[in-house]
Amino acid sequence: MNLTDIYKPIQKDLDGVEKGLKKIASTASPLLSELLAHTLQNGGKRIRPALTLLAGKFGRYNASRLVPMATAIELLHTATLVHDDIVDKSAVRRGKPTVSRAWGENRALLLGDYLFARAGRLAASTGNLRVVELFSETLMTISAGELKQTGITFDLQKARDVYFDWISSKTACLFATATESGAILAQTPESTTSALREYGANFGIAFQIIDDVLDFVGKEAELGKPVGSDLSEGVVTLPTILFMESHPDNHLVAGIVMKKGTGSTAAALEMVRNSTAIEQCLEIASDFAARACQAIQQLPDIPAKHSLEDLARYIIKRHK
Amino acid sequence: MNLTDIYKPIQKDLDGVEKGLKKIASTASPLLSELLAHTLQNGGKRIRPALTLLAGKFGRYNASRLVPMATAIELLHTATLVHDDIVDKSAVRRGKPTVSRAWGENRALLLGDYLFARAGRLAASTGNLRVVELFSETLMTISAGELKQTGITFDLQKARDVYFDWISSKTACLFATATESGAILAQTPESTTSALREYGANFGIAFQIIDDVLDFVGKEAELGKPVGSDLSEGVVTLPTILFMESHPDNHLVAGIVMKKGTGSTAAALEMVRNSTAIEQCLEIASDFAARACQAIQQLPDIPAKHSLEDLARYIIKRHK
Repeated sequence: MNLTDIYKPIQKDLDGVEKGLKKIASTASPLLSELLAHTLQNGGKRIRPALTLLAGKFGRYNASRLVPMATAIELLHTATLVHDDIVDKSAVRRGKPTVSRAWGENRALLLGDYLFARAGRLAASTGNLRVVELFSETLMTISAGELKQTGITFDLQKARDVYFDWISSKTACLFATATESGAILAQTPESTTSALREYGANFGIAFQIIDDVLDFVGKEAELGKPVGSDLSEGVVTLPTILFMESHPDNHLVAGIVMKKGTGSTAAALEMVRNSTAIEQCLEIASDFAARACQAIQQLPDIPAKHSLEDLARYIIKRHK
Repeated sequence: MNLTDIYKPIQKDLDGVEKGLKKIASTASPLLSELLAHTLQNGGKRIRPALTLLAGKFGRYNASRLVPMATAIELLHTATLVHDDIVDKSAVRRGKPTVSRAWGENRALLLGDYLFARAGRLAASTGNLRVVELFSETLMTISAGELKQTGITFDLQKARDVYFDWISSKTACLFATATESGAILAQTPESTTSALREYGANFGIAFQIIDDVLDFVGKEAELGKPVGSDLSEGVVTLPTILFMESHPDNHLVAGIVMKKGTGSTAAALEMVRNSTAIEQCLEIASDFAARACQAIQQLPDIPAKHSLEDLARYIIKRHK
């Protein structure tokens, strides 16, 4: 099972999305064009736009609306990454320097704003106000969620709830919008639209957990950034939380999380990596992937359905 | 001539905008709510939303669409200010600390993103896709324009063109969108819509020139920030450009602009302030205000038309 097989029902239009992104990067002023090319032509897997297109297959599939929407979803995603890299002071993404590191934070901020606007215009070009509202609400959820995070001090008792609340707003919400908008534009019945949204929301949670696991057990070449970036940057994710829950007396990891420790981050990383926390995370992620598949169980047995099921399995296997 | 008289034809609905802004600030999580209250309840003159409402008077005035749109325009404006204050590292706005200074740049960045999204959703709530597209294009123009500025090194030969290009994208574009969106929502004939857009665009240029003049000759209490902030922050505006054009051998001002000087900013400020550059700027601004009025000359003689004409005169007199 690989992405080429999974994307088969929508590959042609996913190529259309790629072309659209390339076109966006080539039609601006020199500096803007350079920044857009840097952020948009990055060899990403384009999972979010693929989800929009796949969801569209459950109704009246209309490429002239679905391709712009899928492109808008990828642009919105890219915009949030560009701004996230400012907030987290990240130096590297996908093996390249971040915009904020290479061109400065001011330019990264303005580029993100431009991408939001460009995404919004593309969403509006579908002619469907419901997806435009959904689109705006998604950015509201993402930014309000991130803002909420900045006001939270770590508390192990609440950490799991805080984590799930956070990844729901920062990641799952956009996946849910990806599938829902595809369904809306294909005019699927409400029950189908809501099943596909449910798929996206659960898929997104699974996706983020795996992403957070890979930050501990992945390889730098594949991650495109140093292993353990999260813990080094003070970002507490599920593997660390589960480790702390089962090792309440471990002062090394706790010290780093509470930013009071003097211990080595590398040693803390190693401890979490070799603990049962990783396996627990994978189980939880698998559970969300299964819920995603369950949500679309009643939908017609078309190739796109198999793709969605395979994609949910694919992201779980991604950690190996 | 004062704002109370000018706003008379739309005062009730402008109060509706104010209520809308207050409601937005009171319905979020505690931190977000605090940040929204700080930025939205600021005693601003609400000129942009007033323009949207006044423009609506030239067609089928519909408060249920025009008030949300006017509110969206003010939100978009506020979002750009919040992000601008990060870019310019400004400490004070309207007599209060900026969000970036008081709560940090990360929170300011996320707040701006939230405001963009909230504005977009409000614009979409009008049910009119054309204003949504216009709205997105406005943010594209503003952010692309600011980005372009970051790549420009000062060149006196080109300075005037660069300045007008810059204020067209950063200020005039939003004023043009304010009037145009009001006209669109009121379903005015195309010629009326384009006349009102033309009014907004010229009004915006005049408004920004006066703003830049006030930065030299205004009083701190009225400006809500120190006099001479622009020159101190290295932002070159029309008064400085005109001064340099007529004093090519003045090394003090040139040194500060080129960031090579060692002279006192206060002395440079004083020189520009006492030069004929200020009077020249006022003439240019008056000319744009006159063009704004000329653009709507053919429109019906309703109270809103007098308000637009008076508003154009009002902003010119603002410097006195």
